[in-house]
Amino acid sequence: MRYLMTFSYDGTNFKGYQRQPNLRTVEGEIENALTYINNGNEVIIHSSGRTDRGVHALNQKAHFDLDLNITLYKLKKAINTYIGNDIYVKSIEVVDDSFHARYMVKKKTYIYKLNMGEYNPIERNYIFQYCKNLDVNLLNNHIKELIGTYDFSAFVNKEDKKESYVRTIYDAYINEKDNILTFTFVGNGFLKYQVRNMVGALIECYSKKKDIKKILLSKDRSSFGKIAPPEGLYLFDVEY
Amino acid sequence: MRYLMTFSYDGTNFKGYQRQPNLRTVEGEIENALTYINNGNEVIIHSSGRTDRGVHALNQKAHFDLDLNITLYKLKKAINTYIGNDIYVKSIEVVDDSFHARYMVKKKTYIYKLNMGEYNPIERNYIFQYCKNLDVNLLNNHIKELIGTYDFSAFVNKEDKKESYVRTIYDAYINEKDNILTFTFVGNGFLKYQVRNMVGALIECYSKKKDIKKILLSKDRSSFGKIAPPEGLYLFDVEY
Repeated sequence: MRYLMTFSYDGTNFKGYQRQPNLRTVEGEIENALTYINNGNEVIIHSSGRTDRGVHALNQKAHFDLDLNITLYKLKKAINTYIGNDIYVKSIEVVDDSFHARYMVKKKTYIYKLNMGEYNPIERNYIFQYCKNLDVNLLNNHIKELIGTYDFSAFVNKEDKKESYVRTIYDAYINEKDNILTFTFVGNGFLKYQVRNMVGALIECYSKKKDIKKILLSKDRSSFGKIAPPEGLYLFDVEY
Repeated sequence: MRYLMTFSYDGTNFKGYQRQPNLRTVEGEIENALTYINNGNEVIIHSSGRTDRGVHALNQKAHFDLDLNITLYKLKKAINTYIGNDIYVKSIEVVDDSFHARYMVKKKTYIYKLNMGEYNPIERNYIFQYCKNLDVNLLNNHIKELIGTYDFSAFVNKEDKKESYVRTIYDAYINEKDNILTFTFVGNGFLKYQVRNMVGALIECYSKKKDIKKILLSKDRSSFGKIAPPEGLYLFDVEY
């Protein structure tokens, strides 16, 4: 039986996403729980994609195969019992055997949170403490320029070789509330570090008077400086 | 020169508030930084009061004496440089030599955050994940009964001997937003565990149909069950 699970996690204390021997990772934590529930027979999960170390998720999705006589309710409860309290399985459904959590993604939404106000130690692992002002209207004009189908090489670190850097961003906008900016990006998929690099570049559109369209079209990662740190980033949703 | 500092902290990773040898505590962390800035001459801070292990503060206050030729701006910057990123000094002012951060408190405000919705791993150290429904209107009727001058023994653990358990609560109410309840308590001072015990008792006014006035007047801690956990509690403000 193939299952699709939706889960959230706090990325702070994981050593990244993908299973690694002797390190606590998001995938490893869930696979260990599923393998235990499956009487020690290994279960592998296939996620919609990885997230960087320190990045959070509100609705990450993954599929796995399991042949056990267990209700969805009990399976959810069992996994949540055997994983740490920084991950939580929100729901599980049965899907067709041909379903694939990575290859069949239609849309992903990421959000990025940034605090323009005073440093807040309570938010430090969950909102980027930028602590300087940004012009939201100006940034909203820039972020719109990223909507469309483009080669996003400018926002990818050079060591990440891919067949294609072309992706489509369906929507991108920024909201402000109580000095906290929330950047939203909806796309058909995102390259490694792409969202954090886009946020870093957008900050420089204000702080260093850069032009996001020029950066995008340059296809050159050296056209701006810093990547935004991981703690502000959340995988918000995955749609099939 | 006597200084009054206002600071915030995330209580999650501290082994409590009060200085203890070889343990990382809130007071110890600040005193170590001040002593370092004071060229190794010990500086002691006097806080408005302690908070329990795991409890947070948005505006905790403390005074200390220091004779250094340094501006307030540089002093604040220096302390923030030498303390961990889970504490932050928001402001420092010069006060009269007779000022005392504990004895002169006029009003303290605590807030307690509780999530009635689905478990959220990202909030687990900052909002009590109760994950069951409560009736806010009913609880608001109960919490009002705590306003006034009373012997609050019912909300104090028995091992904590005090000369008097009489305190005054000026205001108490609950707000709801997006399934998150925020309990606010304003008083002239609170006993150890008092706020967390009041929240625990209020929960039982719904879940076990108890009456907060009866609990209060019983002066008996065994009149209700569980204390609410520390992670939902914030010292919100201290006034002189």
